[in-house]
Amino acid sequence: MSIIYVFDLAGTFVFAISGILTATRNRLDWFGGLVIALVTAVGGGTLRDMMIGSTPVGWMQDGNYLIVILAGSLVAYFFRGAVRRLRRTMFLFDSIGIGLFTILGLTKTLEAGLSIPVAVLMGVVSAVFGGVVRDTLCNTVPLIFRKEIYATACLAGGTLYVSLTYFGVVENVAIVSTVVFIILLRIFAVRFHWSLPALDGSRATADDVVS
Amino acid sequence: MSIIYVFDLAGTFVFAISGILTATRNRLDWFGGLVIALVTAVGGGTLRDMMIGSTPVGWMQDGNYLIVILAGSLVAYFFRGAVRRLRRTMFLFDSIGIGLFTILGLTKTLEAGLSIPVAVLMGVVSAVFGGVVRDTLCNTVPLIFRKEIYATACLAGGTLYVSLTYFGVVENVAIVSTVVFIILLRIFAVRFHWSLPALDGSRATADDVVS
Amino acid sequence: MSIIYVFDLAGTFVFAISGILTATRNRLDWFGGLVIALVTAVGGGTLRDMMIGSTPVGWMQDGNYLIVILAGSLVAYFFRGAVRRLRRTMFLFDSIGIGLFTILGLTKTLEAGLSIPVAVLMGVVSAVFGGVVRDTLCNTVPLIFRKEIYATACLAGGTLYVSLTYFGVVENVAIVSTVVFIILLRIFAVRFHWSLPALDGSRATADDVVS
Repeated sequence: MSIIYVFDLAGTFVFAISGILTATRNRLDWFGGLVIALVTAVGGGTLRDMMIGSTPVGWMQDGNYLIVILAGSLVAYFFRGAVRRLRRTMFLFDSIGIGLFTILGLTKTLEAGLSIPVAVLMGVVSAVFGGVVRDTLCNTVPLIFRKEIYATACLAGGTLYVSLTYFGVVENVAIVSTVVFIILLRIFAVRFHWSLPALDGSRATADDVVS
Repeated sequence: MSIIYVFDLAGTFVFAISGILTATRNRLDWFGGLVIALVTAVGGGTLRDMMIGSTPVGWMQDGNYLIVILAGSLVAYFFRGAVRRLRRTMFLFDSIGIGLFTILGLTKTLEAGLSIPVAVLMGVVSAVFGGVVRDTLCNTVPLIFRKEIYATACLAGGTLYVSLTYFGVVENVAIVSTVVFIILLRIFAVRFHWSLPALDGSRATADDVVS
Repeated sequence: MSIIYVFDLAGTFVFAISGILTATRNRLDWFGGLVIALVTAVGGGTLRDMMIGSTPVGWMQDGNYLIVILAGSLVAYFFRGAVRRLRRTMFLFDSIGIGLFTILGLTKTLEAGLSIPVAVLMGVVSAVFGGVVRDTLCNTVPLIFRKEIYATACLAGGTLYVSLTYFGVVENVAIVSTVVFIILLRIFAVRFHWSLPALDGSRATADDVVS
């Protein structure tokens, strides 16, 4: 689990940055910004842990998460300009983040003895719920409901990961494959304007969802 | 509990349909629609189970809930026109749904050793919280706060159920009586424009809350 | 813990009043008002207890909380005019409320074996989350993100309390000092228009946050 742990912290770091950027756009002060950074970074894992009954929730038992969130917030604040220019890098990190969070949530749910479909679902929840709360607090329709390839990529990635491990693929290979798959899926979605059809028959456009 | 279980799945089915209809009106894509269907159907039970400490939450341990939600979503999608024309049927099903969810939440809370007022409250939470989250995610003031006879009917129904069982009425009779009572209460509320007085003295109008 | 318990009920009472006042402004009916009163008063403690795994959550196991919330709601409803004229008194009570809720949340988290930074954070969550949900349900950007000295005062107060107890100050003295500190901090913030700088460089103004 050591590699996953490192990537988990990396994902937390990137989500904290994403939170600060959103808070800046909403003209919050730095305290509100820290709250949004925290919520974006740990929201998904918190809901997952509460639902599967793994309490106190994970990040509360490991000080590194708060440190990483603080570090990500400082980076986002002091290098605002650079972070915005680095949109592609952010997009990449964010994709790695949701990929790892999906796998982490999935694994933890399976370990709690729950079924594979529920585990995939909890993987998606782990990856996207923080962003949903961030958007709800900032009073916009959550991004996940507008630029849909985001959560769909987690769902597809989670399914891939389950399939790979089912067929005996080594864990680290399965992890890397899943993350690469999610990154490619999102890049293609943006490049070729992929989007899911709206329920009422109209079409939305997929865009870069970072920043 | 067998009859309750069947009705619980029926309620889940109806709430999934209601979620898809709301998502369609909000022009979400099918993934967002499935998320809203899931949240509407299991949101109340999830919060209740997390609060009373019954984790992993119920629907995660029984695959039938996900299957029923998927089925309800497909029905809502493919028979959109019919579902809308069947408003009265939907209203009936929805009333059965909240009636059963109220009783289920109430019973489960009592079994956790908590008091009767808390159990009635958790019954209401089980019945209406899914809809509250649905409306919050879709960025409208939750229906429950506008068309109030909805949650009030759950409160009245829960109180009736507790009274009936207290006086020794057979469980199945108490269940049916409560559900019929809630249905009648809502029909009368719509028919005669019942509504609770607003806190500031003005009056709101009760309408059909389904779809 | 007896003094804390009394103040906890007092804080619950004040938050219920604050919930009813918000609901009145949003033209909800009395049922919606009771829901908002309940959520404002117990929301923070509920999330805290679910996160640290202390379930069933506290207020569900002690009927006094529901009674106090009902009493606060009745007072807010029948003495609406007076309550509004008593803005200063409300401000005072509200400050006492968040002070006590901060300390309570902090203590309970430490007792669950978690670290001091997490405990301070959970103290803030206990104090302000109810208000965040209240504002989200009423569809406004949460006050906490606009009038920021509010939550910052909890953070500062929690840090003070931890420091005082660390240096061996008697519990009751530490409690009173913390609450007085939070009250003064908020009074000064309003009086001298203190606010934290916005992330984008602009400045917001701190105002009276009660009512």
